[in-house]
Amino acid sequence: MRVLRLNHAPSIVGYAAVVGGKEHEGPLGADFDLHDDSGKFGMDTWEKSESEMQRLALNLALSKGELSYQSIDAIFAGDLMNQCTGSAYGLLSFEKPYFGLYGACSTFAEATMLSSLMINAGYFRKCAAVSSSHFCSAERQFRFPLEYGGQRAPTAQWTATASGAAILSADGNGPYVTEVMPGIIVDKGINDINNMGAAMAPAAIDTLTAYFTETGKQPDDFDLILTGDLGLEGLSITRTLMKNEGYDLTKVYNDCGLLLYGKASQDVHCGGSGCGCSASVICGHILKRFAKGELKNVLYLATGALMSPNSLKQGATIPGIAHLVHISSEQNG
Amino acid sequence: MRVLRLNHAPSIVGYAAVVGGKEHEGPLGADFDLHDDSGKFGMDTWEKSESEMQRLALNLALSKGELSYQSIDAIFAGDLMNQCTGSAYGLLSFEKPYFGLYGACSTFAEATMLSSLMINAGYFRKCAAVSSSHFCSAERQFRFPLEYGGQRAPTAQWTATASGAAILSADGNGPYVTEVMPGIIVDKGINDINNMGAAMAPAAIDTLTAYFTETGKQPDDFDLILTGDLGLEGLSITRTLMKNEGYDLTKVYNDCGLLLYGKASQDVHCGGSGCGCSASVICGHILKRFAKGELKNVLYLATGALMSPNSLKQGATIPGIAHLVHISSEQNG
Repeated sequence: MRVLRLNHAPSIVGYAAVVGGKEHEGPLGADFDLHDDSGKFGMDTWEKSESEMQRLALNLALSKGELSYQSIDAIFAGDLMNQCTGSAYGLLSFEKPYFGLYGACSTFAEATMLSSLMINAGYFRKCAAVSSSHFCSAERQFRFPLEYGGQRAPTAQWTATASGAAILSADGNGPYVTEVMPGIIVDKGINDINNMGAAMAPAAIDTLTAYFTETGKQPDDFDLILTGDLGLEGLSITRTLMKNEGYDLTKVYNDCGLLLYGKASQDVHCGGSGCGCSASVICGHILKRFAKGELKNVLYLATGALMSPNSLKQGATIPGIAHLVHISSEQNG
Repeated sequence: MRVLRLNHAPSIVGYAAVVGGKEHEGPLGADFDLHDDSGKFGMDTWEKSESEMQRLALNLALSKGELSYQSIDAIFAGDLMNQCTGSAYGLLSFEKPYFGLYGACSTFAEATMLSSLMINAGYFRKCAAVSSSHFCSAERQFRFPLEYGGQRAPTAQWTATASGAAILSADGNGPYVTEVMPGIIVDKGINDINNMGAAMAPAAIDTLTAYFTETGKQPDDFDLILTGDLGLEGLSITRTLMKNEGYDLTKVYNDCGLLLYGKASQDVHCGGSGCGCSASVICGHILKRFAKGELKNVLYLATGALMSPNSLKQGATIPGIAHLVHISSEQNG
């Protein structure tokens, strides 16, 4: 069994999202707690800006939850930067037990999953899950220096300048993380760095079909099934192949990378991506919809592409992973 | 309380270490399960060699424990490569739920800690903890291309070409992981990339003093207190500052980075480092000494330096972390 049912399902008691200008201009702009149009957040390098976003997101999540930083027992965090420095520097000042994660764009789900498992087991009362990405730090690390002005492929996605933080707690009034399911690394041979959606979709399909098979649930049992950042290409592959497996996602399926930007006008091609993409959509938008009563039952699957620029130069293909987190307004949901 | 006591302490039921030529020539050489003097392990790039070491280490750990790969419920793994590709590619073929970690040289302790916590909570029956480093992949990523032949500073450490894998299990006859304690990120302002021992020592001191304070134990309660890879410089700082705190480590303290190489003849300066350093010393040497009855009670603290080459170029200092794992021959030890 890969699905882990949480009998003492932790509650999400604080959450916040911090974004850049482009994300603020998008359709979810009004939902985000803080934005800086310059993307700099008062810092003099993009990498420091990304760290600062994580610090701000966690501070805001604590503050919105009316929690002191002392109440946190541990932090689970990660990002896309080499050696995950966005998190290490950004979260240093909290002086809390720290678990560094690397799951590429699946990191926020991995952090939420591990936080929830730890609280459910009684090891901790409160944990923070945090992740981030920054267009400017990612672009020069993974593709080209911004000044080069590289042409973007039609299947390319736009790395979100965004960070999300959620506080999971043994006490609280929901929403609750009631089930989690760690992903398996899946590699179907895609080697196009400009088509990460296609590379990650097989992992999402693997996790989703395993979840439905094990639980006996159907897509329509959920208000929303939300992948992390497959974008338009990956979403369409997932929808089609899931239909072939006998699961019709049409009515309930969307993708954080598509929700984050207004398609045509913002010129992001296939949608958003990055560790901050689904983190900010969950912590900015989705959890607010739970608070308003608009959502009660959501399957969130963050997908990650586990290659590096070096591994692709050496001829490797792109392995993907998808971690699942079931968020429900009912503790036994 | 930062110390987590494991009431259903998991047993280490399989372990293996795979190393390069220099590590095999060192004083622990005969303890390692597999070595390749070329460091290539049949691959055509150093990065692929590192992945192959992880695959081999996990396979050998399973085989030595007389376990099938199907028996593993989840893998916790990480490495030093950008985007942790050593683990993602190396462990892809096992097709198991995968938790990617980044803790720099503390990764093996982080993986062992999370595996143990998950098993103790009943989520999984068996987990694998795996990590690696490779001198040739690390040197060109963190310092200079090998061909450049850069001069090494006296306080520099040598990144180990090594991988270790351990299988933690709900059943077994020990040794057991009886306590774990996640580290806090500590940054005391060291910015010399050639003196990682000094940068990481404060984190080791923070974790050790907190452990002794919380548990009321003393250094002499242990057969051995073993830091991950502080090297000669970090070990001497730790010993001195711990003495100032009232804890005399003289009789029981050593460091994996010092154990791995024969000091003068091997020209490694301050000792070994890298995610594979303590992983191979634990899985090659220490667990064999448990099996022979020579060790019964060991505190293992793996230290990690969480900077990146970019963060140092941008003027940041080096944050360190130290995760603690208590290994005992008694399940309630």
